[in-house]
Amino acid sequence: MPVVGIVGGGQLARMTAQAAVSLAVEVRVLAAPGEESAAPWVTARGATGTLGEDGFLDGVDVLTFDHELVDPARVEAAELRGVVVRPGSATLRFADKAHQRERLAAAGIPVPPFAVLQSAAGAGALAAAHGGWPVVLKAARGGYDGRGVAVVADEAAAAAFAGSRTVVVEPLLPLERELAVLVARRPGGEAVVYPPVQTLQVDGICHELVAPAPVGADLADAAAALALRVADLCGAVGILAVELFVVDGRLLVNEVAPRPHNSGHHTIEHAATSQFENHLRAVLDWPLGATTPRTPAAAMVNVLGNGDVDPRDRLPAALARGPASVHLYAKGPRAGRKLGHVTALGDDPAEVRGRARRVAAALSGAA
Amino acid sequence: MPVVGIVGGGQLARMTAQAAVSLAVEVRVLAAPGEESAAPWVTARGATGTLGEDGFLDGVDVLTFDHELVDPARVEAAELRGVVVRPGSATLRFADKAHQRERLAAAGIPVPPFAVLQSAAGAGALAAAHGGWPVVLKAARGGYDGRGVAVVADEAAAAAFAGSRTVVVEPLLPLERELAVLVARRPGGEAVVYPPVQTLQVDGICHELVAPAPVGADLADAAAALALRVADLCGAVGILAVELFVVDGRLLVNEVAPRPHNSGHHTIEHAATSQFENHLRAVLDWPLGATTPRTPAAAMVNVLGNGDVDPRDRLPAALARGPASVHLYAKGPRAGRKLGHVTALGDDPAEVRGRARRVAAALSGAA
Repeated sequence: MPVVGIVGGGQLARMTAQAAVSLAVEVRVLAAPGEESAAPWVTARGATGTLGEDGFLDGVDVLTFDHELVDPARVEAAELRGVVVRPGSATLRFADKAHQRERLAAAGIPVPPFAVLQSAAGAGALAAAHGGWPVVLKAARGGYDGRGVAVVADEAAAAAFAGSRTVVVEPLLPLERELAVLVARRPGGEAVVYPPVQTLQVDGICHELVAPAPVGADLADAAAALALRVADLCGAVGILAVELFVVDGRLLVNEVAPRPHNSGHHTIEHAATSQFENHLRAVLDWPLGATTPRTPAAAMVNVLGNGDVDPRDRLPAALARGPASVHLYAKGPRAGRKLGHVTALGDDPAEVRGRARRVAAALSGAA
Repeated sequence: MPVVGIVGGGQLARMTAQAAVSLAVEVRVLAAPGEESAAPWVTARGATGTLGEDGFLDGVDVLTFDHELVDPARVEAAELRGVVVRPGSATLRFADKAHQRERLAAAGIPVPPFAVLQSAAGAGALAAAHGGWPVVLKAARGGYDGRGVAVVADEAAAAAFAGSRTVVVEPLLPLERELAVLVARRPGGEAVVYPPVQTLQVDGICHELVAPAPVGADLADAAAALALRVADLCGAVGILAVELFVVDGRLLVNEVAPRPHNSGHHTIEHAATSQFENHLRAVLDWPLGATTPRTPAAAMVNVLGNGDVDPRDRLPAALARGPASVHLYAKGPRAGRKLGHVTALGDDPAEVRGRARRVAAALSGAA
């Protein structure tokens, strides 16, 4: 029975472990002290930067990740010791937004206009060249769910945000919509792609998605092809999520994440193979599963923390407002925190979105 | 976070625990020494007849079952101590096939002609009244997967099979087909029913099923209505599986099982709510989930033990023969043992059955 080690004990590890049950794959989760989500299966506690020195890797066949906030140099050191790490250190380096943008741009992948900011004056130069202030600043490392991102109106604000960090600056683009495409890719390069979805982001946090994305077949096909190119470029193994902007009918790669991703949670019910199962199959170098949707439409709505409301207390009432598939992460409530998600399947995009929203609102206490 | 205790650590406990992850329900499994299937979550070991004396029930909100081979008197004693047991002892008494047949017949539920055998001469009398030898003998208690059932050709064989056990005898009926209907029922009587499936049984072991059952709407509706009547009669809480014979176009209740059941494994992918989630929702007295199918057709094929072939070793090759959803139970191989199952969804019943069979055969080494 193969053993997959996962660095990080968040909801992605939790749902990967849940998927692993069906394949009789053993999962061992290395969670940071105090982390609570994947609790039933956490088999080790420790700084997630220690990749093997503490015995966590003994008997682990493949090491993978719940998040990309790991030091690629330590991952590389583990690889040099012979640990099978998927995705590998070269792919994980793409978690650095500056590295990512530079590599994508160099390969001719369409990305937003950007600069890697060396000084606040650099932000001003980009603003001047692309329609003026405000501009968007993104910390190269450590950000997630809108953290590490700011819209700033002048050089002083840019300097205050950047501090001593490496920061990517880009214009505030007039987005028509945001799409996301998931790719599952094996070590040898075999890959499958999920149909593009449209995401709704608020303050950098994914609130909901609809699948398939309500775009023409040409744009959907172009998005899928672009994601496959990006996955090859990153040398991705496992799931790679590619977040796209649509601006003036054109696709721009906003960001990539080398792991299962919020924009694929609907695949648990909607796809012939979930992103979590395909992540496991890919990192184990097993044949990948079909990504075919089971119904014409799906919607996924996140359950975000709302004060001290605990969705677990509201679950029975929320279930009565379905039908929908509820996933709770067993995390303590905190404002804005992702505590769960709700997926609805059906024939009509508006109807499934309404149903998923209704159940999610009942869970978060917003309704 | 509610805590559900499960007596028995087989694949039904395993898949119930997997479903519980989504609802943030904690599951504690009481497995017999040496039992291996639900391994990652087994939280206690001990004789499964000890219902509370050993501390297993401390903190458990509801106690339920992976199998019905428990002593109803001990369950009743636990209830008298205040333990919430669902299904309760009165329902669990229906696991006794003699009790079950007598109660169903007394309530006017159509069942096969039968007698509770007191002597081998009784088998002869039933044979004489219903077309002669051979007849079918079923041990009232302790049987599963064809064990405890025999087709016997004369009184001597009947006497040898029965020994000192209580045995039900029935004629060997000319079955047109076998159906199964699952009901999920809450303590107050609210219930939902899954669309009837057709099962293929070989030597008393379920080999495969197709959903929906290929019968007319009238028969399907009658089967669903009959299952709901039986669930009421049994006072079922949680899933109740009702196995039906079709003889001369008429429905006869062959057997009931007060727990998640092999004939509902396809619901993990095929139904809006799986039997495992609805079992949890029912025993927690939460609103039940919709049973609507996601695709026009589904087939489920069991992976049965074939010598010492371990399906885990054949998983990568089998996955390449999909698309299909594979569920392995992490049980050691043994001839005839249920080691996993494969579900395929699609539009055409013959196509999905072929696909599920192909993957299951690759896992069991039969292809």
